[in-house]
Amino acid sequence: MTSARTQPTQPDRTTHPTLAIVGVTGAVGQEFLRVLDQRSFPMGGLKLLASARSAGKTAEFRGKTLTIEELTEDSFAGVDIALFSAGGSISKKYAQAAIDAGAVVVDNSSAFRMTDGVPLVVPEVNADAITAANIGLGEGQVPGVIANPNCSTIIMLLAVTPIHRAVGVKRLVVSTYQAASGAGAAAMAELEQQTREVLEGRQPTCDIFPQQYAFNLFSHNSPVQPNGYNQEELKMVHETHKIWGEQGDNKTGITATCIRVPVMRAHAESINLTLDKPLSEDEAHKLLADAPGVSLIDDRENNRFPTPLDASHVDDVFVGRIRHDLSQPEGYGLDLFVCGDQVRKGAALNAVQIAELLVK
Amino acid sequence: MTSARTQPTQPDRTTHPTLAIVGVTGAVGQEFLRVLDQRSFPMGGLKLLASARSAGKTAEFRGKTLTIEELTEDSFAGVDIALFSAGGSISKKYAQAAIDAGAVVVDNSSAFRMTDGVPLVVPEVNADAITAANIGLGEGQVPGVIANPNCSTIIMLLAVTPIHRAVGVKRLVVSTYQAASGAGAAAMAELEQQTREVLEGRQPTCDIFPQQYAFNLFSHNSPVQPNGYNQEELKMVHETHKIWGEQGDNKTGITATCIRVPVMRAHAESINLTLDKPLSEDEAHKLLADAPGVSLIDDRENNRFPTPLDASHVDDVFVGRIRHDLSQPEGYGLDLFVCGDQVRKGAALNAVQIAELLVK
Repeated sequence: MTSARTQPTQPDRTTHPTLAIVGVTGAVGQEFLRVLDQRSFPMGGLKLLASARSAGKTAEFRGKTLTIEELTEDSFAGVDIALFSAGGSISKKYAQAAIDAGAVVVDNSSAFRMTDGVPLVVPEVNADAITAANIGLGEGQVPGVIANPNCSTIIMLLAVTPIHRAVGVKRLVVSTYQAASGAGAAAMAELEQQTREVLEGRQPTCDIFPQQYAFNLFSHNSPVQPNGYNQEELKMVHETHKIWGEQGDNKTGITATCIRVPVMRAHAESINLTLDKPLSEDEAHKLLADAPGVSLIDDRENNRFPTPLDASHVDDVFVGRIRHDLSQPEGYGLDLFVCGDQVRKGAALNAVQIAELLVK
Repeated sequence: MTSARTQPTQPDRTTHPTLAIVGVTGAVGQEFLRVLDQRSFPMGGLKLLASARSAGKTAEFRGKTLTIEELTEDSFAGVDIALFSAGGSISKKYAQAAIDAGAVVVDNSSAFRMTDGVPLVVPEVNADAITAANIGLGEGQVPGVIANPNCSTIIMLLAVTPIHRAVGVKRLVVSTYQAASGAGAAAMAELEQQTREVLEGRQPTCDIFPQQYAFNLFSHNSPVQPNGYNQEELKMVHETHKIWGEQGDNKTGITATCIRVPVMRAHAESINLTLDKPLSEDEAHKLLADAPGVSLIDDRENNRFPTPLDASHVDDVFVGRIRHDLSQPEGYGLDLFVCGDQVRKGAALNAVQIAELLVK
């Protein structure tokens, strides 16, 4: 009894895991701290990791000052869940070290998303993919990687999955309006700097993007593949198929055009659906009103629909412009306009929700 | 002989018509002056008309200072071609006075676009609609209205018509990225002012639009109809049918989602096509390279595609991202990204090109 009282209680990793954040100085890394705090994530400890350049800097969390440590292969001793958001090459280099130390890796990069056996998870859509892969902290479960999908995919699937589950989406045409944050904090700073420069009649500084971004827009900067699609667009196609569990001829037809617009941190998407079975506007409205993680702004009379500013710093994805598509038989076509915070639901929040699934 | 020498030669209205510009102080009105000058439009005279508020102000044209007169029903004596760009209500009020004075009205507003008997013309697409209506300055022709289509429609049809003519477009899904200029010079000024305010941490001034425009985007501000489409979107649908001469069951299926983005004066459009007959990417590329009024920027290797800045202050509409749509059978689906100057080809240039057809 006495010894039990004097010994500190070992925190149970299944209820109060020790977390590591890899890439804590980035836009998503910083958002991790806010989201974990706001959601009162139960944790036994928190380790902040970044490149050697940031080691020794500090960050505030729940009233405590934490020192950022340099990421090395030895960083993960005692870590139960490692939230990675430092780019694909860092994930590829260090994920195995985290797993070897017994941690579950929740990875924001694209490094492992399409890898067989790696669950690609939007908690509102396919939480069961984690169970199927048996990755977790519990009895009999194993360490491994759970991948966080691309931001544009997550935001789209929050809105489209309820409709897909109800009546089946046969074909999907999406055009995106993507914010600077998707290219990181430096891109947001460049957009701001360029805007100041243009307003002052000066030549805009183009360090991150090769083209002027202020008061302009351009096709997404990810590499263009031989089929003419850029990688961002193909992520939306292939990740959706994986998340929806579609294979072979069973796959929903998807085409995407991804465009960067001079907006700071929330993406918008114009989505056109061809449906297997008919769905009325009212039914679509009800499905989306009831959908987890979705809020409606769909006020035709006042011409008030979702905007990136509505979605910024907010958990939910906003949906509006829900209307029957005039170009398709009544009930079989639907247009939607969706806005979601790229940094939050598109990245940090979704990853923390995955971590919450591991704790539950 | 002697009397013929001393009498001034009366300019021939069919080769050197007298022009009036109604709404010369607006963004499009000012662009009329630039375009007429740059294209060396042959004219016998030029009358600048605007509201009483602007009467007495001056404008420069070809080295001469012209005084702006107040628009009244008596303004059109001696005018052969009246270029209207002062909004639908002004067109409705004064077009008949211009016609009664013997002028052909080229109208930039939506007032008469869908009126039976009024040609709706994109010169590269359906110049013959003017001949069919017998409106003109020549022998046996009559005064009347020729309507200039909506800016988004014009820009889209420059790119899509060559494909439609070659293989038939069965269905078209378009999402727009529309510039401030479409709402006039005051909207462009508001975007600039708001951007300064946001950068200074101040509350943005919202006079023209009810929502913040700087670093944001929103569904087009035209009134939303009972079917959920806004007027801008329905213009793209209905005007395309009229320009392509489609009626009844023959109509191409079109759906549009129109969004305003914080860009100054060129629109972008993401266009997805379903084709009647197969077309390869190479064939599409060739069709568009040969199309009048179209330039290609379609460099996959360098990720260089059309941007609004490429299209600003330029005549041509730019097309890129030409690629086979992965969601449709090979050859039967095509994605395009298009940018065009809203003030120029979307309005002033197209109207001046119509006027040129009257002179020829």
